[in-house]
Amino acid sequence: MAELQREQPPSRHATNWFLNDDHLRIINSQCLDAATALRHQSLLTDFKKTLDFSPATCSLAQLASNSTQWVDKQVTLHGYVGARRVANKTLVFAELHDMSLTSIIQIVSSVTKNVDSISRPHDLLRDLEQHTPVVIQGTVKGRQAPKAGQSSKDESKPMIIAGVEIKLDNITPLNAFPKDLIVTSDTVFSPEKRHLQIKHDKSIRDALIFRSKVSRFVRDHLADNHGFEEFETPLLFKSTPEGAREFLVPTRNPGFAYALPQSPQQYKQILMASGISRYMQIARCFRDEDLRADRQPEFTQVDLEMAFASDEDVMRTVEDTVKALWEKMLPGAALSEAFPRMTYAEAMSRYGSDKPDVRLGSEIRRVEYMLPVDLVSKIGPLSDPIVEVMKVAISDDPATTRKFVSTFMDSPEAASFISNPEGQPGISVCDSRKPLQGLQTFGFEAAEQLEETLDLQDGDLVVLQARKNAAFAGGSTPIGNLRLALHRFACKQALLPPHDPQMFEFLWVTDFPLFTPTSIEPTEPGQGGTTGLTSTHHPFTAPKTAADVDLLLEAPLEAKGAHYDLVLNGVELGGGSRRIHNSLMQEFIFRHVLGMSDERVGNFRHLLEVLRAGCPPHAGMALGFDRLVAVMLGRESVRDVIAFPKSGRGEDLMVGAPTRMSDGQMRTYGLQMAAKV
Amino acid sequence: MAELQREQPPSRHATNWFLNDDHLRIINSQCLDAATALRHQSLLTDFKKTLDFSPATCSLAQLASNSTQWVDKQVTLHGYVGARRVANKTLVFAELHDMSLTSIIQIVSSVTKNVDSISRPHDLLRDLEQHTPVVIQGTVKGRQAPKAGQSSKDESKPMIIAGVEIKLDNITPLNAFPKDLIVTSDTVFSPEKRHLQIKHDKSIRDALIFRSKVSRFVRDHLADNHGFEEFETPLLFKSTPEGAREFLVPTRNPGFAYALPQSPQQYKQILMASGISRYMQIARCFRDEDLRADRQPEFTQVDLEMAFASDEDVMRTVEDTVKALWEKMLPGAALSEAFPRMTYAEAMSRYGSDKPDVRLGSEIRRVEYMLPVDLVSKIGPLSDPIVEVMKVAISDDPATTRKFVSTFMDSPEAASFISNPEGQPGISVCDSRKPLQGLQTFGFEAAEQLEETLDLQDGDLVVLQARKNAAFAGGSTPIGNLRLALHRFACKQALLPPHDPQMFEFLWVTDFPLFTPTSIEPTEPGQGGTTGLTSTHHPFTAPKTAADVDLLLEAPLEAKGAHYDLVLNGVELGGGSRRIHNSLMQEFIFRHVLGMSDERVGNFRHLLEVLRAGCPPHAGMALGFDRLVAVMLGRESVRDVIAFPKSGRGEDLMVGAPTRMSDGQMRTYGLQMAAKV
Repeated sequence: MAELQREQPPSRHATNWFLNDDHLRIINSQCLDAATALRHQSLLTDFKKTLDFSPATCSLAQLASNSTQWVDKQVTLHGYVGARRVANKTLVFAELHDMSLTSIIQIVSSVTKNVDSISRPHDLLRDLEQHTPVVIQGTVKGRQAPKAGQSSKDESKPMIIAGVEIKLDNITPLNAFPKDLIVTSDTVFSPEKRHLQIKHDKSIRDALIFRSKVSRFVRDHLADNHGFEEFETPLLFKSTPEGAREFLVPTRNPGFAYALPQSPQQYKQILMASGISRYMQIARCFRDEDLRADRQPEFTQVDLEMAFASDEDVMRTVEDTVKALWEKMLPGAALSEAFPRMTYAEAMSRYGSDKPDVRLGSEIRRVEYMLPVDLVSKIGPLSDPIVEVMKVAISDDPATTRKFVSTFMDSPEAASFISNPEGQPGISVCDSRKPLQGLQTFGFEAAEQLEETLDLQDGDLVVLQARKNAAFAGGSTPIGNLRLALHRFACKQALLPPHDPQMFEFLWVTDFPLFTPTSIEPTEPGQGGTTGLTSTHHPFTAPKTAADVDLLLEAPLEAKGAHYDLVLNGVELGGGSRRIHNSLMQEFIFRHVLGMSDERVGNFRHLLEVLRAGCPPHAGMALGFDRLVAVMLGRESVRDVIAFPKSGRGEDLMVGAPTRMSDGQMRTYGLQMAAKV
Repeated sequence: MAELQREQPPSRHATNWFLNDDHLRIINSQCLDAATALRHQSLLTDFKKTLDFSPATCSLAQLASNSTQWVDKQVTLHGYVGARRVANKTLVFAELHDMSLTSIIQIVSSVTKNVDSISRPHDLLRDLEQHTPVVIQGTVKGRQAPKAGQSSKDESKPMIIAGVEIKLDNITPLNAFPKDLIVTSDTVFSPEKRHLQIKHDKSIRDALIFRSKVSRFVRDHLADNHGFEEFETPLLFKSTPEGAREFLVPTRNPGFAYALPQSPQQYKQILMASGISRYMQIARCFRDEDLRADRQPEFTQVDLEMAFASDEDVMRTVEDTVKALWEKMLPGAALSEAFPRMTYAEAMSRYGSDKPDVRLGSEIRRVEYMLPVDLVSKIGPLSDPIVEVMKVAISDDPATTRKFVSTFMDSPEAASFISNPEGQPGISVCDSRKPLQGLQTFGFEAAEQLEETLDLQDGDLVVLQARKNAAFAGGSTPIGNLRLALHRFACKQALLPPHDPQMFEFLWVTDFPLFTPTSIEPTEPGQGGTTGLTSTHHPFTAPKTAADVDLLLEAPLEAKGAHYDLVLNGVELGGGSRRIHNSLMQEFIFRHVLGMSDERVGNFRHLLEVLRAGCPPHAGMALGFDRLVAVMLGRESVRDVIAFPKSGRGEDLMVGAPTRMSDGQMRTYGLQMAAKV
């Protein structure tokens, strides 16, 4: 009980005359309150100063376009403070940048009076942080032309307006620009600072504006020349897996969810069945995929569909639109009169790819018939393989080519080719100073034949690759991938010239197999059924000809689809197909060719129902819009033409999305975290 | 052990000579297989016949526009079989409808030969189900002009092409039209059959095409006349509740989700901070709300934002665009030179609504000063109320008006007004044959004053309503709602004429209070903070004037926001505001005015960060696009201008969305159903 006797802490309401801790705390907090109030008052005061600002008399571009007519006029201009030069205490030059980063005008402030007297505009022009948004009031004055170098037409840099400058009367800062943000013309900002990148990197700004103009042109051209109207289709759709994994959107009806569409495919087919004759939409689409190969979880496509139309009608319409688009937006580029066409089988055999980059040359040929039997048996573990060969003209000096080969083979890029289970590539270098021109491995006869067939020159690389003797499936063959890798590597090493940015090699690839063995492609959620077949594109694609229809019963893997891809410079811009417009036929494909369960077929009940109601034949296409714009501008990544792209992990690093769901949010949707297994 | 001796069942491989059950089963299933195979073969055969069909020579519209030039030409036409008339065994007439439901041409088939001989085209034309999609081949023939009545220009009906008809050579059906679907010109289909409604209801088709043209015009006008470009902003955004509840999109990172945006508000502000000068987007937006009042969980808005701009700049731009849009799309309508403006306080006091329908007249006035004290105390439970009065000119016959009043008061529409806790409305009918013109309740003096002020005539309805003596808050007052209800009811009873569809009364409503007491509006998730204040629109709205900034510290409820609504015929088309462009000011509003927690403020870190980086002043607006199109076309519901609207319960009844999440889907997203509490 002794503990109860210990000294009591001072009472909260003690009346001793000296200040206790509580008093100090109260006074302290009152001081803090006073400081906070002062701070608030000051920020409100600062904000008030920026509430009323004069509208601009004109933009800098307007001033630039006819500068002399403005001389001696009073103007108000909006913009950002740029580089400054303080000549002396009485004379300051500063640049004013406009918002579009295209024009700069020089602002001059000179104070002739006693330099000790206060000139707030003068001081502000001298002292404001660069990049501060301001309103400038002043008088337009004639000016000696700037040095010749500055008026050069480099479109990526803003142009300084020659001939006039602004004599400063007043300047009003409209916001602060913090000292801790460092911006130079070369700064590459982290994705968290996307706003600074867009603000200071003219190439991104230009790409976004280009993108806007492309979308307007495509809409207008399809409407004015081909009778399309734009129809908006729902984004809160239902889960009907036809390819990639779908994002779900839970509803407050517990256990129920919408799905975000991978494309407007089903709704546009419903529109065709609804008597719409020409549908188009620049549509947002969603895929919850692992983001390999420069893909985004949300992307935009130019989507179109035509009733009473065949594959030919769609290809003609798209080809015309693409040509008109290039003519309008890239007038310097020359396109072939009609885009060449190639079947899938031809593309795969000649280029080892279903989206061949025909600019590269290096066509692939089958050569197993001309090779010595022992060579064929040596180049890989396969018995009776197909053997293919291609030439890559790396250099005209065999030594350079040999060095290139060994560098390449030591690089990580070569790893997948060396470990190819069908055998690694056999590489020779043509060299006239060596026996059989360096093609000894081939034996005398084959070496001679190859030299002639491939028109071999000194320094040419000759690549030999075996593959299984089977029909093509999938998007590429190892030798096709190697073709691209060797060219890319040689470009990086400056052995091959970079691509001409004005060179656009379009190509239609057609006659894809309608189905692919499920084992070839990585199994996507919901694709295919129980028969081991997967739709190569989607299960709504029609067989190409009557003969292909007949193959469905006996040899569905041999049936060709009425599908077509538009390929440009080795990039798939988009694809389309004639669709199955007959309900019974569609159900037959679902059930008997793909082996879908009743439940899976039930997911498509709405589609079968609308096809049943006298749906006309129809065909359509979708062009990847992000990719289209990127290729037009020669950008490597779609991220360069999207204002706010997601990272490789699907995150918007600037706003910080996605975020952790709160308990309350989960509760709203009747959900909780799954128990760990 | 006796049981082991029981008779063995017949062996599966028993060789007895008679057929056992197994045999029957096998034979049966072989027959079934054969039947199935036959059925499959037949459906494939049918499908093959529709694979190749000839392209159309021209559309019916092209044929109609210059029909004589086609006479005696062979043509191929696409369309749907319409009404038929079988004159006799050798002569059939049928209509061919085009896809756009605008033109019809007559097809004639006559067989001159022995009628027993087979003429497949003739038989098909006679027998095909109406609405079957077909290819017609035939010869254009001159034709006597049809009866005068048929060429009348009723745009809602397709027009029969006069002067020519098609002599049938061949007809190919491209799909079946099932007999169980009954379609007449008046059928109203259930939402499950939206495709049939779109196909057969020309008014919906026309609305969707009109919608497409409106969106193109708005884009083009903003680009060509005001320098806007369209920027696409992400739909996979993050949860930052600023108003309505957001839909969430779970990711495969367990517990993490994107949110679908309520509007591109934050991204467009980021674009302003990124140096973009004029942003626009026709953007999809999402709200997980209870769908009162003709709202959709996903909707489209015309969204725009301008840098270095004030509220006036935005209002001018939108007003110009809207006027140009009306001029282009509704050339008959006359709009006022400049849209009138009205403050929120004025709109609430004169019309009892923040989106007044000024077409109705019936202005509201305060009259408590002129009423006898005992009357004021009688009309409701409030002490010292505001009392308002309005006149509704129902009829010029007092008896008719009295009947209207009693019908209205007995209707469900009146219930909320009768149960108004601030007192029920006092209703009198002006009647010169009664003492004090029927206004006895008001007493002699007030009755006389009222009669003069309201310019009362026989049969006018006079409505008196009390309300609390307090500042306006929220969107309407009871008397304002009663004003609308009485007019609506009188229109339904044909006592007031329907609105002139060419009459468009635009109005800007401005000077809204920046904040609303949280108790006034139903609490939305995430709105407001701990101070009992909610942003009237959203927390990014700037105070209107310097005086309003000062009010933030002491009397925030009195501060006006730089917000403006565009109202048309009593419908809010959209709203916008000048935004807070200063990071410190924005944080001050979040923390100190709204009382948001650190966590809530943290949600907006990205916004504070971009405002901090020298963001210029900016202002913008969003117009509800579905609503805009509906009002332009005089449609009651946005559902009439959306291709695939959701039901009142947020369902797409045609495709059947939303659906139950499968266990696999839940597992993918690390979720499970919450345990029942």
